[in-house]
Amino acid sequence: MSAKAWGGAFDEVTDPRVESFTESISFDARLAFVDIRGSQAHARMLAKVGLLTNDEAQQICEHLLAIGEEISRGEFSWRTELEDIHMHIESALIERIGDVGRKLHTGRSRNDQVATDLKLYVREALARVDRLLEDMQRAFVERYDQDLNVILPGYTHLQRAQPVMAVHYWFAYCEKFQRDRDRLADCRKRANVLPLGAAALAGTSLPIDRDETARLLDFTDVAANSLDVSSDRDFLAESLFAMSLIAVHLSGWAEEWILWCTTEFGFLKLPDAYTTGSSIMPQKRNPDVLELIRGKSARVIADLQQLLVLLKGL
Amino acid sequence: MSAKAWGGAFDEVTDPRVESFTESISFDARLAFVDIRGSQAHARMLAKVGLLTNDEAQQICEHLLAIGEEISRGEFSWRTELEDIHMHIESALIERIGDVGRKLHTGRSRNDQVATDLKLYVREALARVDRLLEDMQRAFVERYDQDLNVILPGYTHLQRAQPVMAVHYWFAYCEKFQRDRDRLADCRKRANVLPLGAAALAGTSLPIDRDETARLLDFTDVAANSLDVSSDRDFLAESLFAMSLIAVHLSGWAEEWILWCTTEFGFLKLPDAYTTGSSIMPQKRNPDVLELIRGKSARVIADLQQLLVLLKGL
Amino acid sequence: MSAKAWGGAFDEVTDPRVESFTESISFDARLAFVDIRGSQAHARMLAKVGLLTNDEAQQICEHLLAIGEEISRGEFSWRTELEDIHMHIESALIERIGDVGRKLHTGRSRNDQVATDLKLYVREALARVDRLLEDMQRAFVERYDQDLNVILPGYTHLQRAQPVMAVHYWFAYCEKFQRDRDRLADCRKRANVLPLGAAALAGTSLPIDRDETARLLDFTDVAANSLDVSSDRDFLAESLFAMSLIAVHLSGWAEEWILWCTTEFGFLKLPDAYTTGSSIMPQKRNPDVLELIRGKSARVIADLQQLLVLLKGL
Amino acid sequence: MSAKAWGGAFDEVTDPRVESFTESISFDARLAFVDIRGSQAHARMLAKVGLLTNDEAQQICEHLLAIGEEISRGEFSWRTELEDIHMHIESALIERIGDVGRKLHTGRSRNDQVATDLKLYVREALARVDRLLEDMQRAFVERYDQDLNVILPGYTHLQRAQPVMAVHYWFAYCEKFQRDRDRLADCRKRANVLPLGAAALAGTSLPIDRDETARLLDFTDVAANSLDVSSDRDFLAESLFAMSLIAVHLSGWAEEWILWCTTEFGFLKLPDAYTTGSSIMPQKRNPDVLELIRGKSARVIADLQQLLVLLKGL
Repeated sequence: MSAKAWGGAFDEVTDPRVESFTESISFDARLAFVDIRGSQAHARMLAKVGLLTNDEAQQICEHLLAIGEEISRGEFSWRTELEDIHMHIESALIERIGDVGRKLHTGRSRNDQVATDLKLYVREALARVDRLLEDMQRAFVERYDQDLNVILPGYTHLQRAQPVMAVHYWFAYCEKFQRDRDRLADCRKRANVLPLGAAALAGTSLPIDRDETARLLDFTDVAANSLDVSSDRDFLAESLFAMSLIAVHLSGWAEEWILWCTTEFGFLKLPDAYTTGSSIMPQKRNPDVLELIRGKSARVIADLQQLLVLLKGL
Repeated sequence: MSAKAWGGAFDEVTDPRVESFTESISFDARLAFVDIRGSQAHARMLAKVGLLTNDEAQQICEHLLAIGEEISRGEFSWRTELEDIHMHIESALIERIGDVGRKLHTGRSRNDQVATDLKLYVREALARVDRLLEDMQRAFVERYDQDLNVILPGYTHLQRAQPVMAVHYWFAYCEKFQRDRDRLADCRKRANVLPLGAAALAGTSLPIDRDETARLLDFTDVAANSLDVSSDRDFLAESLFAMSLIAVHLSGWAEEWILWCTTEFGFLKLPDAYTTGSSIMPQKRNPDVLELIRGKSARVIADLQQLLVLLKGL
Repeated sequence: MSAKAWGGAFDEVTDPRVESFTESISFDARLAFVDIRGSQAHARMLAKVGLLTNDEAQQICEHLLAIGEEISRGEFSWRTELEDIHMHIESALIERIGDVGRKLHTGRSRNDQVATDLKLYVREALARVDRLLEDMQRAFVERYDQDLNVILPGYTHLQRAQPVMAVHYWFAYCEKFQRDRDRLADCRKRANVLPLGAAALAGTSLPIDRDETARLLDFTDVAANSLDVSSDRDFLAESLFAMSLIAVHLSGWAEEWILWCTTEFGFLKLPDAYTTGSSIMPQKRNPDVLELIRGKSARVIADLQQLLVLLKGL
Repeated sequence: MSAKAWGGAFDEVTDPRVESFTESISFDARLAFVDIRGSQAHARMLAKVGLLTNDEAQQICEHLLAIGEEISRGEFSWRTELEDIHMHIESALIERIGDVGRKLHTGRSRNDQVATDLKLYVREALARVDRLLEDMQRAFVERYDQDLNVILPGYTHLQRAQPVMAVHYWFAYCEKFQRDRDRLADCRKRANVLPLGAAALAGTSLPIDRDETARLLDFTDVAANSLDVSSDRDFLAESLFAMSLIAVHLSGWAEEWILWCTTEFGFLKLPDAYTTGSSIMPQKRNPDVLELIRGKSARVIADLQQLLVLLKGL
């Protein structure tokens, strides 16, 4: 029997090369935990409106929890022919609790799940990056007393212009990171809209309670238009843009410090623990970490570009 | 005598090829009106704190107004050796009112002016685009009564999935444009911070009143760190990103309608006034306008990319 | 009467906003001279195969020459409603020699013309850039005797690694430019294929002689497939890529020299004629030209990106 | 004792977060086989010039072979603190044959190895893609007899223009792939230059024989300037560009066929084995494979962009 959700309608089995080309589990396994969280909320909502019994919902939530723990422990087995994370978790649930597991998909589509999972995942990523930026700000502010009397040249066109206090440099970085954090917050605000209920694109006729699901998942709003929300990836592009400007800021900071670490500028000496050396030139202290920050920022910018190209071409 | 602000310190005259390579007047002439507005506010602030007399400020403001009117009428003459719009307007002012005109530059630098002008210009551009998006939304909403009974196929993977109401399509576009407008508003909020007073990078020791200038120019805040604000172009990148997503939305809409205009789909017929024809195939009705919307969107995305590459490389 | 080539088939006149949105004359006026050259070759070929008399071809070629001279002298008048450069030149020709002018379009379409013009234009641009790169190489090589004894630090990770001869630096730039020139040559080779004869997309049944046109225009080959060549813009993307790597090389060189011009490195002093100064800091010598080379390289990279996005979306 | 090649010169051990941030083994393990091939050639060359005995070279080559086989069988263990593939293989070699293994690094630097490995890897990738394109061409050409009588509409502006033969479409794709293959060949030609011998950047004073190494590795030429070649990544950018245009061509083909698969166009029916279905709409035949080809092409374009941004920022 076919493992595919839609296998019954087809006369031929899928070519294995198609399976390996269209699988997404190698990308979306990272969505496992948000997928489980989203499904738990969906089950509880279904119970609330009477589409599941409380017992069924409870059974589903417990087994989803157990599946999540297996994944955490690395004991869950991934199979290319199950395509994506949603099929993996649903299949595992059905294996364990049979028809009750099948009922979880009542009133939602795969499209719904993908959109909801992505929003939950991005929301957490935004929060994580925000905390890291706050750490950076603290690190700069905490140098205040120590560096209060340090004067550095200020540059325009990389030519010395006017002397400035080192802490003025540190606080300039803090300002940039603050704007970045404000952008992350605005982005989170727009990501915080529940897409569940759009189904494939036209909504569902079942009496689901989207406000309840939104409440359970801490979304501040529910989507207004199913056609729009089923394909909306604005929040991904906006997140990647916010990350791109963060990358540009980090790259600028890294570039400045790489320069300051040169023999010629000599404003900074990085500790051995944060540099690497050379096998043939023992005097070298290479600011690899700063160079990699600068270099890896190109990837973030390219990721934004990739998504915009992808969205434009859909 | 040198026309350059910094000419006196140099032994050689600038190579004319350098002048034509470094000029920006062919790009920044469009900043003329915001430059004048910014300078008028600066003059009034200088008068308020006593760095100019009221008469001097009045004289400056009136002559700036007259210069603006000349530019509007196309009677102002541009000269490559004056490099940029700021020098053009300042030179014209000094030609007319001599030393009083020179006093306008008290307590600010060229850097200050560029940053302020760009913010004023972008703020207006954001407002203009917002109004255009609102027009689009109205246009779609106003079809409600007329199209209420029109049913269209809804597609996933470009395969017919479920029937949807045409107005459901129209409202989906409205949702996208609404998110775009929210992004424009957030962007405006962050652009709305006065940079004047940073000078080249280290601020000024003159007793200027930045809150007064902010009030006169409707900025909601003044910048906290001169090093940061003198080079901050985040607001440009953020504006271009908001425009990029708008372009992606317009491109998607155009693509959908191009398809709907084909003989094969046949859902839409564009009026002759909005199509072009073919010299050798008289039956053709080409949806050029939609195709150009789709095509020109590539430029907006590339502009964002260009600025991110530029900012990263600074 | 309508000025449009296809106007007769339409009931409504084109909306003027559509005209100004779809016009390309503000972009493609620069194709005037290659358009004329292409049309002259087409006319001569038509005469050779007997679709024009020799007198007609001669008359067409002479009047095209005269139109080109008018454009050179800035005496030609551009009109938005004529859309593009091809219509402008054709209309001017018909105004002057009536029906004979109309015959020029025998056996070709507008599409043909656009493709041919672009190839001729790009071919010249590639040759021009190649000559400029050769100039750069010569400039570096000519420093050999003078700089033979100059030793500079070689850097890895911007940390001093090993001493190298200055001329070793100069020759490294020459190597990069040589690869660039090889790429330009390869690009020219692929651009050098005549597209004329594809017509709109399906070719023409008239007995045209494409080899003759190719010979007259110095193309080395004629296109094999009309569907392919009517939309092929590979040669534009490839040219922009070659330009992008040139821009990257120039940007790297500029960045290196900006660093060498700092007080801290101090390896280079640019002459006053190639730097700009500061109105408030008279000691400044800003390497604006180098900074602009670095900055403008972002535009070339973005242009490549724009074209790839555009081509992908077609 | 430190596992780092440069560990001896440092007072502090590297912070483990730095190790995990700067490691590249998770990226460059794929270079294992070309690294081994390059090292074998280097060893043989060292033996030829007398810097190794024949026995030593033989011993090195055999153990490198064995290491490669271990990697193939998945039995080789990767360790983050060994940073990159070169250190992994060198360490394994030294573990097995001690000081003889250490001699392999005579007359070359890590930089040399990275550059050589990348060229060998890219050269193979170019050849592999070329073969795949040739397969595509054959597949289209082999439809000739079968499709000879099939007529399809030809489109401009997605409006029906003129009828064309289906095989005319197939051959148009072949033309595009042929230009792609020509670009791959030109790219291979420029990649085919041995970088070994540049050392960190200034070359080596040891009497190595680069022509011999080039011969052993099938490079057609040796690099002329050590400063240039030690940082040259043009061949990567050029490869990615060639891949980008291939991606654009594949995307255009996929887009065309997605359209042809719609109910509305209906020119094509994909076999079940090459489509996927829908869990809630059994009539659906989704052309996922074509959609993914179109979608994944965005990644290739973004990869090119990323590398250009990276190279520009170095």
